[in-house]
Amino acid sequence: MELIIINGPNLNLLGIRETAVYGDVSFDAFLVNLRKDFPERTIDYYQSNVEGEIINKLHEIGFVYDGIILNAGGYTHTSVAIADAVAAIKTPVVEVHISNIFAREEYRHISLIAPHCKGSISGFGLDSYRLAIESFVDLRFKV
Amino acid sequence: MELIIINGPNLNLLGIRETAVYGDVSFDAFLVNLRKDFPERTIDYYQSNVEGEIINKLHEIGFVYDGIILNAGGYTHTSVAIADAVAAIKTPVVEVHISNIFAREEYRHISLIAPHCKGSISGFGLDSYRLAIESFVDLRFKV
Amino acid sequence: MELIIINGPNLNLLGIRETAVYGDVSFDAFLVNLRKDFPERTIDYYQSNVEGEIINKLHEIGFVYDGIILNAGGYTHTSVAIADAVAAIKTPVVEVHISNIFAREEYRHISLIAPHCKGSISGFGLDSYRLAIESFVDLRFKV
Amino acid sequence: MELIIINGPNLNLLGIRETAVYGDVSFDAFLVNLRKDFPERTIDYYQSNVEGEIINKLHEIGFVYDGIILNAGGYTHTSVAIADAVAAIKTPVVEVHISNIFAREEYRHISLIAPHCKGSISGFGLDSYRLAIESFVDLRFKV
Amino acid sequence: MELIIINGPNLNLLGIRETAVYGDVSFDAFLVNLRKDFPERTIDYYQSNVEGEIINKLHEIGFVYDGIILNAGGYTHTSVAIADAVAAIKTPVVEVHISNIFAREEYRHISLIAPHCKGSISGFGLDSYRLAIESFVDLRFKV
Amino acid sequence: MELIIINGPNLNLLGIRETAVYGDVSFDAFLVNLRKDFPERTIDYYQSNVEGEIINKLHEIGFVYDGIILNAGGYTHTSVAIADAVAAIKTPVVEVHISNIFAREEYRHISLIAPHCKGSISGFGLDSYRLAIESFVDLRFKV
Amino acid sequence: MELIIINGPNLNLLGIRETAVYGDVSFDAFLVNLRKDFPERTIDYYQSNVEGEIINKLHEIGFVYDGIILNAGGYTHTSVAIADAVAAIKTPVVEVHISNIFAREEYRHISLIAPHCKGSISGFGLDSYRLAIESFVDLRFKV
Amino acid sequence: MELIIINGPNLNLLGIRETAVYGDVSFDAFLVNLRKDFPERTIDYYQSNVEGEIINKLHEIGFVYDGIILNAGGYTHTSVAIADAVAAIKTPVVEVHISNIFAREEYRHISLIAPHCKGSISGFGLDSYRLAIESFVDLRFKV
Amino acid sequence: MELIIINGPNLNLLGIRETAVYGDVSFDAFLVNLRKDFPERTIDYYQSNVEGEIINKLHEIGFVYDGIILNAGGYTHTSVAIADAVAAIKTPVVEVHISNIFAREEYRHISLIAPHCKGSISGFGLDSYRLAIESFVDLRFKV
Amino acid sequence: MELIIINGPNLNLLGIRETAVYGDVSFDAFLVNLRKDFPERTIDYYQSNVEGEIINKLHEIGFVYDGIILNAGGYTHTSVAIADAVAAIKTPVVEVHISNIFAREEYRHISLIAPHCKGSISGFGLDSYRLAIESFVDLRFKV
Amino acid sequence: MELIIINGPNLNLLGIRETAVYGDVSFDAFLVNLRKDFPERTIDYYQSNVEGEIINKLHEIGFVYDGIILNAGGYTHTSVAIADAVAAIKTPVVEVHISNIFAREEYRHISLIAPHCKGSISGFGLDSYRLAIESFVDLRFKV
Amino acid sequence: MELIIINGPNLNLLGIRETAVYGDVSFDAFLVNLRKDFPERTIDYYQSNVEGEIINKLHEIGFVYDGIILNAGGYTHTSVAIADAVAAIKTPVVEVHISNIFAREEYRHISLIAPHCKGSISGFGLDSYRLAIESFVDLRFKV
Repeated sequence: MELIIINGPNLNLLGIRETAVYGDVSFDAFLVNLRKDFPERTIDYYQSNVEGEIINKLHEIGFVYDGIILNAGGYTHTSVAIADAVAAIKTPVVEVHISNIFAREEYRHISLIAPHCKGSISGFGLDSYRLAIESFVDLRFKV
Repeated sequence: MELIIINGPNLNLLGIRETAVYGDVSFDAFLVNLRKDFPERTIDYYQSNVEGEIINKLHEIGFVYDGIILNAGGYTHTSVAIADAVAAIKTPVVEVHISNIFAREEYRHISLIAPHCKGSISGFGLDSYRLAIESFVDLRFKV
Repeated sequence: MELIIINGPNLNLLGIRETAVYGDVSFDAFLVNLRKDFPERTIDYYQSNVEGEIINKLHEIGFVYDGIILNAGGYTHTSVAIADAVAAIKTPVVEVHISNIFAREEYRHISLIAPHCKGSISGFGLDSYRLAIESFVDLRFKV
Repeated sequence: MELIIINGPNLNLLGIRETAVYGDVSFDAFLVNLRKDFPERTIDYYQSNVEGEIINKLHEIGFVYDGIILNAGGYTHTSVAIADAVAAIKTPVVEVHISNIFAREEYRHISLIAPHCKGSISGFGLDSYRLAIESFVDLRFKV
Repeated sequence: MELIIINGPNLNLLGIRETAVYGDVSFDAFLVNLRKDFPERTIDYYQSNVEGEIINKLHEIGFVYDGIILNAGGYTHTSVAIADAVAAIKTPVVEVHISNIFAREEYRHISLIAPHCKGSISGFGLDSYRLAIESFVDLRFKV
Repeated sequence: MELIIINGPNLNLLGIRETAVYGDVSFDAFLVNLRKDFPERTIDYYQSNVEGEIINKLHEIGFVYDGIILNAGGYTHTSVAIADAVAAIKTPVVEVHISNIFAREEYRHISLIAPHCKGSISGFGLDSYRLAIESFVDLRFKV
Repeated sequence: MELIIINGPNLNLLGIRETAVYGDVSFDAFLVNLRKDFPERTIDYYQSNVEGEIINKLHEIGFVYDGIILNAGGYTHTSVAIADAVAAIKTPVVEVHISNIFAREEYRHISLIAPHCKGSISGFGLDSYRLAIESFVDLRFKV
Repeated sequence: MELIIINGPNLNLLGIRETAVYGDVSFDAFLVNLRKDFPERTIDYYQSNVEGEIINKLHEIGFVYDGIILNAGGYTHTSVAIADAVAAIKTPVVEVHISNIFAREEYRHISLIAPHCKGSISGFGLDSYRLAIESFVDLRFKV
Repeated sequence: MELIIINGPNLNLLGIRETAVYGDVSFDAFLVNLRKDFPERTIDYYQSNVEGEIINKLHEIGFVYDGIILNAGGYTHTSVAIADAVAAIKTPVVEVHISNIFAREEYRHISLIAPHCKGSISGFGLDSYRLAIESFVDLRFKV
Repeated sequence: MELIIINGPNLNLLGIRETAVYGDVSFDAFLVNLRKDFPERTIDYYQSNVEGEIINKLHEIGFVYDGIILNAGGYTHTSVAIADAVAAIKTPVVEVHISNIFAREEYRHISLIAPHCKGSISGFGLDSYRLAIESFVDLRFKV
Repeated sequence: MELIIINGPNLNLLGIRETAVYGDVSFDAFLVNLRKDFPERTIDYYQSNVEGEIINKLHEIGFVYDGIILNAGGYTHTSVAIADAVAAIKTPVVEVHISNIFAREEYRHISLIAPHCKGSISGFGLDSYRLAIESFVDLRFKV
Repeated sequence: MELIIINGPNLNLLGIRETAVYGDVSFDAFLVNLRKDFPERTIDYYQSNVEGEIINKLHEIGFVYDGIILNAGGYTHTSVAIADAVAAIKTPVVEVHISNIFAREEYRHISLIAPHCKGSISGFGLDSYRLAIESFVDLRFKV
């Protein structure tokens, strides 16, 4: 089972940016731990601040991987184009958010991407990613 | 660690009602399996179709349990009173939904309860509950 | 053919409350006459002011009766949970209103329940119930 | 008792147009049966696709007939002028719709005409008309 | 003069819940003092978290008491059914809120119940109840 | 304890203007009685139809008086400038309205001033002012 | 100077329809008097309930007459097509309304036609027409 | 018959300000001609840029004059207080505007004052005032 | 292949009306040229200012022609009835507009008719019609 | 005459992605045919998923080519920046869409780009592009 | 070069009012320094809490000064009348705000005055005024 | 003190694009002059049409420079991602616009970026940049 985490804009600053909201762990450090938790899985990683490059990556891996964990950052609320890409590919996508987006500014309550995803997980800090991985590797019941 | 799952209106019909959307497994059957997956945890269960009884239950267990998994069903989108109850208690609450509420009618996209929860998980079928349990029992990183 | 009338909040005050809008006949008196008009039918009756109890009743009779006549009163405009219950059961539901809800306050113009009903009848006073019974007992054309 | 059914735009195509929504019975065929059901009543019929001709007809018969059954079709949602005509005449008007307009596109949920009608019936297929006739011929309780 | 205070959802947690907003005095302790301030009045008390039970109580006492002091809590902003009950009964109702609801979240600025009440008092902490009692016992000018 | 009542536009016409809504007692006559009720308090009075003069007065007394009772009349719903003045001064302000503003036109339901006040009282006729005075002179519980 | 009055839907019922709002004088009777007041002017008259016939008439006389007085009735608030016709012709158009449309239902506050007219007069009963005639025959200042 | 014209903010600049919209005649020059046209009437004049002073003037003359012609300028669209004053006085008020407010910015399409006026005239340049005077001096039909 | 062009309100004024927007060629002159360009096709033409007559024509030819080119003019933005007619018939309809409706007033940006058409072409002047004809006669790829 | 087709995000997946909506022909295969249809024209092609690269390309060719056919995909509904680029360049732009965007989700009904284009064509499948080419090569009438 | 700073409501409290938002320097103290920075310029100053007096002042100096720096305070968001005055005068106006109005309450994000100003500066504390002065005295490029 | 100007989409066309709105000076020519005005400062420059590259640049210099002058062009109104980047970095950002964005299309009135900036300057042509530089180099008062 090949999985990939795709992070959108500003998530490269994790551990540096607004640590009160996003925590002080860098994503690289987190990734080391995450891979240890799931030793039998391939967990690839991609980050870009460019909307179109995220689309490129979704096209590239969206017909070959088994699962995509997508945190589109600020594009979550504005990008019809990424939403269309998620709808266009075959690999199921799980949307994650580090913070509880429903407890923040009103414009963060609506995700354009969520309707095309398999499911959505938000508010658990970096553990949101871990739960998303779980959702692929250990399913008991079909939806 | 004592956890409780609270299910709101119509979720007693699970396995009977709109099986194309919610699956054909009853919640009782699911619960047997779920408890087997987490043998070292107490996982209590409560269901009511009455908004105020859900509030009563939240008050009753909201200062003594370690975690609440809440699927408020249709009250998710209309109940300021349940949202106030979630805000009033001490025990952290994780919101779950069986279906991907963001892929359904527009009035289901907004949860009044989510802003007061620790996190939110939707779209994984009954596995949404299992992921919510995971979020309590196996946290690596603080939010 | 077993039919049931379910009345929601404040309809127990019929004949007492705002008689200019709702008339001065109590529902019990009306029911006696109604049953005389349809001697060969069972017409059961249930009233509750509690949203969740209406849902309980819908679940209880929603797989065994032939028809439900539902006046959800004020819950008509606010209850996603009752609307979900109507959608979840098998028995067809006809929505009735005593007054012409379209000639009253704007928030009464929208029914959350109507989309899941077979049909809707409003404005004929207590005769709205009689017409709803007719709609079950004397159909000529399929929709 | 003289009654008249007035049908608005596109209802002349009944039985031909979108039969999945409106059924495959022509209105003429239906009318023959309807008149048989109420042999002691005069049930006239008028159809026009022209908004202003419907107004003309309402003016013509709106002070002499005992009841009007009006299905204004698409004008239901856009015509202040027909609504004004209904308010201007003396004969009571009952609004009918073949389909359940509340289960269709959002712009069909609001009727400009309903506030000026005695009552409203929708969703019973062609039987909506029959119930509307009933509402005139067999009233037990005043509103 | 018989008065009754009716408290809605979560107000049973007063003194425990969000003390920064609602203060740390329990309603029972407050009630003892309040009754001392008005020794010549009967001041009954009822609390429920169930919307329909509040309606039941309003029906029960709404034709016999002299005044009702109602804090509907979260139902203030969502309950057409309680608003209908207030409109249906004969006893005048005064709406109270402990906090200044206009200084809180936007959805708390609109009360569905207020239009049917005699008056509205908010923001004075538990003294809001005392002022409401005053409004019944010591009126100089008719409105 | 020095208190002041500030009345906004058109309140100088009290007793003359729309007596069905506002009563037929002039404010001066009312004031004589009000001062008798609270003989140990200074109750000053100011009225102006000019938005800016109300602001001037708030600035002048807003750092020296113990309480302000403000009925800003029509400016209640339109004046950011008066709201800013209320927020800028030190003396606590209680908002009063003679009529129940929530039972009138929709644009009267929102007060720009209320969020910056200590509390709000409306619907008790001239007694609204008396209750506001009470709120300053006889507090038992802190908010 | 040739002028024409064009009346839209339901204005043929003037003197019969809702006399509390529109008065009890028929338009024909009024027209006799109006022509006496302006003996040196030709004042033609046209009425139709059909939106498209009003457009036809505007096209026919809109390049030859000196002025048009238009009361489009209910089409005022819904007809982009009549508004386009007014914009398309050369003859200046003055909009009139018998009642004060701003004191009625909210949907009557907006006129689609007014932006393309020279001016607008409403609320003076049938005198609105007379003032519109004046506006053509006795101008002192250019706009 | 005593009439008064009340002009609101910026109308003192008439003839100087935006002459393309408002013309190049000063109001004083216009007033000389207007009085000549109606020699048997008293036509007083008042102008102020201060909202509250306009209210003061309305109070002062609103119980003694026979008619008020009010152009409230920019306050037309924002002043609940002036609208309340118009509603409070006895003298009928006619609203006038020099330009066609419906052909300008959208926020100028709504007048808060119009609902309380007898009628409304806009778009005829300074002749709007003359037509308003006519509406008082030469009425044939009651509304 | 039989095609028909149906033009709605005010399009009979083409070449006369607002030539800056619509050009100075009459539709008749254009039609002569258009037919020359497609000599092997029948291109019929119908124009009406009456909404209902356009519906009549759509019914008449909507089951026998091969294609309809429809410019509904102002009815484009207001007519649910024409939209229903387009949905009711069998012949595919292509919507055309002479001007770029998206560069004009905001209410022209939404077409009620477009959702039921095969496609939509706007902004190419009279060539919009020619492109619409092309769309029927020279298709390479199925949609 | 040099023309260029610019395709936005996800259009590189044509023939693969959602074939029920967009067809199963790849754009490259289509392009071969298209160029055969117009042998005397240069038809260049550019595709990017990156919003800013589309802007770069518009700048590069927007002062030298004779025509641009732009399908901005999902950016159509969200990109003020591309709309500004279209407005900034000299070459006329025709907007095309493969599907009928007006028959899809509501957020696809509004194009930010269309107001700055010469014209707009949607719903004809890949033939939308061919019609756009036609609009440049075979114009008879100026707009 | 003669410049004038006009301050609106509550700005006389600068240094006293909400010092966390507006700083603790009085405007008079600031003005002394500001004039030292621009010794060769006349910098007059006017403050009023009265909307109409600000309009009076704009009229008085709006045809003779070289530049106006306007901080209309709370009137920024509500005063069509001041906006009209800015549009009516000849002297260019620069709008300033001490705080960043875009980072505060939503109703402060929209300025009715800004569209008629030359430019707008906000968020630099009292330095906003200094930058506005700079904008008049040291322009290199015309807009 | 190291400052940098970051320009967003289409600003590379300055001097070429819509010169009536943006002037005919290229940004390079302007930059030469600007640097002369502030010889003792480093003023770097970056322009990109790609949203994500602007974010990359903000990350790169946002922890080392002393000030950023940002004109995000069309992304100002649509980019949550750039707004998040501005909030994430340490260097203060001043937003500038060449034109007065409040006097243009309504969608340009709202900046998603402004709430996270220190201040905002718009409408002074290229001098907006110069004023922004001033705001960094010559501050007298802290905000």
